[in-house]
Amino acid sequence: MSSDTNLKIDGARLWQSLMDIGEIGKTEKGGCKRLALSDLDRQARDLFIQWAKDAGCTIKVDRMGNIFARRAGRNDSLPPIMTGSHLDTVPTGGKFDGILGVMAGLEVMRTLHDHDYVTEAPIELTVFTNEEGSRFAPAMVSSGVFSGVFSLDYGLSRADRDGKTIGEELKRIGYDGPEEVGGRPVGAFFEVHIEQGPILEDNARSVGVVSGVQSIKWFEATLAGAECHAGTTPMASRRDALVAAAEVVAAVERIAWEHAPDGRGTVGLLEASPNGRNVVTGSVFMTIDLRHPQDAVLAEMQAKLQTAFDAAATRRALDASLSCIWESPALHFDADCVGAVRRAAEAGGHAFMEVVSGAGHDAVYMSKVAPTAMIFIPCEKGISHNELESATPEDCAAGCDVLLRAMVERANAAAA
Amino acid sequence: MSSDTNLKIDGARLWQSLMDIGEIGKTEKGGCKRLALSDLDRQARDLFIQWAKDAGCTIKVDRMGNIFARRAGRNDSLPPIMTGSHLDTVPTGGKFDGILGVMAGLEVMRTLHDHDYVTEAPIELTVFTNEEGSRFAPAMVSSGVFSGVFSLDYGLSRADRDGKTIGEELKRIGYDGPEEVGGRPVGAFFEVHIEQGPILEDNARSVGVVSGVQSIKWFEATLAGAECHAGTTPMASRRDALVAAAEVVAAVERIAWEHAPDGRGTVGLLEASPNGRNVVTGSVFMTIDLRHPQDAVLAEMQAKLQTAFDAAATRRALDASLSCIWESPALHFDADCVGAVRRAAEAGGHAFMEVVSGAGHDAVYMSKVAPTAMIFIPCEKGISHNELESATPEDCAAGCDVLLRAMVERANAAAA
Repeated sequence: MSSDTNLKIDGARLWQSLMDIGEIGKTEKGGCKRLALSDLDRQARDLFIQWAKDAGCTIKVDRMGNIFARRAGRNDSLPPIMTGSHLDTVPTGGKFDGILGVMAGLEVMRTLHDHDYVTEAPIELTVFTNEEGSRFAPAMVSSGVFSGVFSLDYGLSRADRDGKTIGEELKRIGYDGPEEVGGRPVGAFFEVHIEQGPILEDNARSVGVVSGVQSIKWFEATLAGAECHAGTTPMASRRDALVAAAEVVAAVERIAWEHAPDGRGTVGLLEASPNGRNVVTGSVFMTIDLRHPQDAVLAEMQAKLQTAFDAAATRRALDASLSCIWESPALHFDADCVGAVRRAAEAGGHAFMEVVSGAGHDAVYMSKVAPTAMIFIPCEKGISHNELESATPEDCAAGCDVLLRAMVERANAAAA
Repeated sequence: MSSDTNLKIDGARLWQSLMDIGEIGKTEKGGCKRLALSDLDRQARDLFIQWAKDAGCTIKVDRMGNIFARRAGRNDSLPPIMTGSHLDTVPTGGKFDGILGVMAGLEVMRTLHDHDYVTEAPIELTVFTNEEGSRFAPAMVSSGVFSGVFSLDYGLSRADRDGKTIGEELKRIGYDGPEEVGGRPVGAFFEVHIEQGPILEDNARSVGVVSGVQSIKWFEATLAGAECHAGTTPMASRRDALVAAAEVVAAVERIAWEHAPDGRGTVGLLEASPNGRNVVTGSVFMTIDLRHPQDAVLAEMQAKLQTAFDAAATRRALDASLSCIWESPALHFDADCVGAVRRAAEAGGHAFMEVVSGAGHDAVYMSKVAPTAMIFIPCEKGISHNELESATPEDCAAGCDVLLRAMVERANAAAA
């Protein structure tokens, strides 16, 4: 942000907006249940639009229901500098995941509006439809359509468990907008989000400069031995699939530790069959989630997993298969946008560190069509997707301040 | 068996009876589904009674529906030498588990009848109600009432999932007999049964002289850590309950091997929560089954389990509990009855070995009120409680021959 401005966000107003919009779908435990395209989602959208209009924005809605609140630039034909996130939550979610990114963007708009500050390039604040994927799979579907990863037909035809589609539900709540989805230049995209992990809190930082998203591979494994009687079958006669699975669980943890602190390895789902007290397990289905910021290291981890898996299966003469069912290569955000975030954090005097995102966000898809970076703030104990999700007013304000500075720098740089 | 008899069982007739009664509830895969006190159970009981009467037996039915087919002795006031087992099966059971013990006893009766051979003490063949416990829990409930372990009221009031009680269902199928349950002297009890394990087959023996039943302890364990995001949570910040559970699974196997070949250790049931692909497991419920023929060794195994469990939980700062929910001390069958079985196996020229039963049987409860022993025969690959359960005609005949010899020896010894 150039030194000739006195722009300063209002942290108290930001916090109040978070609390106010959090009333829509508020749960008893202080969380939020606001599923995508529900009546509650409509209420939150309506409130957002009112607030954005009050801050001088014009509103457009596209055919995926993505909302764009726009503040004109001095050169309004320049590609907009964009920010945004989502207002939908998981069924037992919190008040910050996604919502913070929208409210921080709103606070940027309000600050510019209060100061009658006009950036060179226009500024846009977007609300993406159905980021969580809780009601309609997959997650991040509307930023995906915006960036061309999914077709519009695919996006509109996603159905919930009752068979209702995104297209039908957009129409029902009145958010089936006329604008084409994507297909236009975006100058840059910034997204503020809670970290959803403990690293910033553990390191006492208010701001995470997110350099990218780690590489992810998902595996499914089956191990099949022989179901038999736990009382009558000697150990030497067994082909116990659960014991082999336990070795794999241990190996996944070991492999992640061998690549600490960035390596991650998780067996999240494990189903044993027949799962009876006095029956030796005949078969196991399990999933494995491996992550590392570097693709090459993740490939090494995968090779180690295969070796450990094969050894566990062979040792007990099991029929076994391990397959990679999904992979998402490492994503490196735009160096200049990341730099803008770092400069903003420095200029604002915030305690910050560089981090790699462990999860996906709308920014991941946006990075396919625009220079992109993200700004993380800490959340208590790293807890997210949980009604206990919590962040401090100070950290929310810090993230918003960094967003303002980075967006203004980038929007004015367009003039240079 | 004294050398002055030419008693010889008819192996082909025994096999044919097994096949004939196996038609009642026969499944497509060649197994048997004949739940306790179902209409099929009634049909099997009716057929059994007809066969027993044809072999010269008198029939009595007690209030638990246990059937007693009796062949008078020369001194009919002596306590009877008894054999028997059960006709009910698990839902996808086989043609041998339980049924063999009844049909072998029937073949003994038929052989004595054919030869007009009268033993000194009377001989009784019993069919126990609801041994499996599949329809009405617990298992072996009627031999339990007979031996005074359970009260009659308890036995009659056991209900199935539809709320129907044993008492009601006995009445419905006409097997609510007038005789008091138990409370009378039994000279000895012998039970022929398939091994339900692979030891006899692996050692190429036709007969197992069962010296007792191993000591058993069942445990339930809970491990509670913290549910968190698999992507955003560094390994050092995790309290993964599944990894700790995997260590326990591995420890249970190790402990059993440390007491090979008789030690057995099984985690049969393991439930992880929330069991999602990209969520670190918050909590695990698991069961542990430890067995050994000697109580003292089982106590050692239990101590090792506790140590390993505590270490796994402490290493990850989990809230954990391990409790022994059931135990059945080692049972040593009557030395003279076991001796009678061994002598019978030798006299019959059968390949035999001494074994310890890994599972419970009606003979376990009967051993509380009578000198008892069991005779095992091999079943293919140790498979039981499965429609694939299989035994050979030769092994069935061998087990029946041993039963005949042991019962006759014991029944005539009463005269000495």
